[in-house]
Amino acid sequence: MRNLSQLGEFGLIDVLKKYAPISKEVKKGIGDDAAVLAYNKKDYLLLTTDMLAEDVHFTRQMSAKGIGHKALACSISDIAAMGGWPTFAVVSLGVSSQESVDFIKNIYQGIEKIARAYHVSVVGGDTIKTEKMIINVALLGQVEKTSLTTRDGARCGDRLFVTGPLGGSLKSSHHLNFMPRLEQARFLVKHFKPSAMMDISDGLSGDLNHILKASGVGVCLDEDMIPRNKGVGLEQALNEGEDFELLFTIEPKKARRLMDWQARNKVFYFYPIGTITSHAHERPRSKSFSHF
Amino acid sequence: MRNLSQLGEFGLIDVLKKYAPISKEVKKGIGDDAAVLAYNKKDYLLLTTDMLAEDVHFTRQMSAKGIGHKALACSISDIAAMGGWPTFAVVSLGVSSQESVDFIKNIYQGIEKIARAYHVSVVGGDTIKTEKMIINVALLGQVEKTSLTTRDGARCGDRLFVTGPLGGSLKSSHHLNFMPRLEQARFLVKHFKPSAMMDISDGLSGDLNHILKASGVGVCLDEDMIPRNKGVGLEQALNEGEDFELLFTIEPKKARRLMDWQARNKVFYFYPIGTITSHAHERPRSKSFSHF
Repeated sequence: MRNLSQLGEFGLIDVLKKYAPISKEVKKGIGDDAAVLAYNKKDYLLLTTDMLAEDVHFTRQMSAKGIGHKALACSISDIAAMGGWPTFAVVSLGVSSQESVDFIKNIYQGIEKIARAYHVSVVGGDTIKTEKMIINVALLGQVEKTSLTTRDGARCGDRLFVTGPLGGSLKSSHHLNFMPRLEQARFLVKHFKPSAMMDISDGLSGDLNHILKASGVGVCLDEDMIPRNKGVGLEQALNEGEDFELLFTIEPKKARRLMDWQARNKVFYFYPIGTITSHAHERPRSKSFSHF
Repeated sequence: MRNLSQLGEFGLIDVLKKYAPISKEVKKGIGDDAAVLAYNKKDYLLLTTDMLAEDVHFTRQMSAKGIGHKALACSISDIAAMGGWPTFAVVSLGVSSQESVDFIKNIYQGIEKIARAYHVSVVGGDTIKTEKMIINVALLGQVEKTSLTTRDGARCGDRLFVTGPLGGSLKSSHHLNFMPRLEQARFLVKHFKPSAMMDISDGLSGDLNHILKASGVGVCLDEDMIPRNKGVGLEQALNEGEDFELLFTIEPKKARRLMDWQARNKVFYFYPIGTITSHAHERPRSKSFSHF
């Protein structure tokens, strides 16, 4: 009998897909940053959920406001990665009955602050007793059908970009105060239509593989060009995760236009880090760089 | 510094309401079975979330399929209580890395079976490592504006009904295999328009108080008429919880029509258990029946 550590999370997701009943209202189900659902003529509805656990994604020694911030920010990042904007959230909180009310209030203040910044309304939730703290955020969003950007659209020749420097997120507390790249994503989908997009939560090499696998392509990654935070080595930048930057691919012509645009306008900066190839075997292996 | 056991869950919900930013798109936020959100001309969108924890809401000794069933059924019951129907769910699962894959598969099979029965599509989720198992379901639903039924509409003279016998849910495993009262709720909102409705998860007396408080009314409860499961005493029926029956109020004329209807048609049965009064002080106190 296999246990979960042998199967791994992505093995599990493949198992679960089999059980998921799908209606024709579901444009995209399990396997992207958010589910894409029928909504109206112009837009799709987006739905995502993220669970954070004490001693896995945060510790009691971290800032309670930061923990709250992170809980909602992760989900906003998922919605941004689809090209959409977030709307309504529900928050489930599991806490010990001995938990201080101040700590819980601070978690909610952290959630509220980022909710306001991104025009998200927190509309409900659930509170239960648990030994270790657990936070789950489910977030709704919306996206114009023409702006929807999934993981499976990368094509041979497309250029690969990342929205910011990687690595060191845990050490620098970036994971507790990052601002999801919503504005950048909305700018991109409106003006440059990326062919594929996702956010980096598990690390560049692992997450990039999701795009490659979904799109049936390979990559030639320019390791020297991968932007890194101060004091961060290549391996860390590739594998550490919790960066919450966006990874996207874009046609070569548009890539050149994007580079021109950002040379003139210093609003955002997008880092070109590689080229999509047709060779599906050219995929980075997490924690192994020999194939790059 | 207060801790959570002193404040209690409903104290906490009051604290949290203060932090919840609200947009004009939110018809009802925190404080009902589900949030009610702007959708289209005819319908509202409903959104609810429920978290279940090992050793609080279930144990490892219980049926894994039952645990999965319960996780989604609780949320379907919330959507039914608003008068709507469920559509899309996302499931977050926290499990230990030593968990057997079979146990997890069975949980998902339990979720899938009830999802199919209620035409719910499971469209995504999150899987993380935790020491004790945690399941969170966030569920979307829809309701015609004319069918929306909240907790705050009970009026003096309205009759109080419950959809089925109460008590003994944990002992009988009802909480692992109950079928949410969706059909009954849809029948009621279409043909009898209840003035208020909610589902009983924490126990009749506590949950009834939510209706009374939200509506600013009291109740004269007919204790002898409260339907109970076999071997269940009054105190248990009033306070035990996990019944997932619906509690609703309805104008006296409609109540009579409802009684006539169910005398002729043996499809559903609704139990009349009391009358709404104008006296806000006439509210049952949980675990204390002296005021009934």
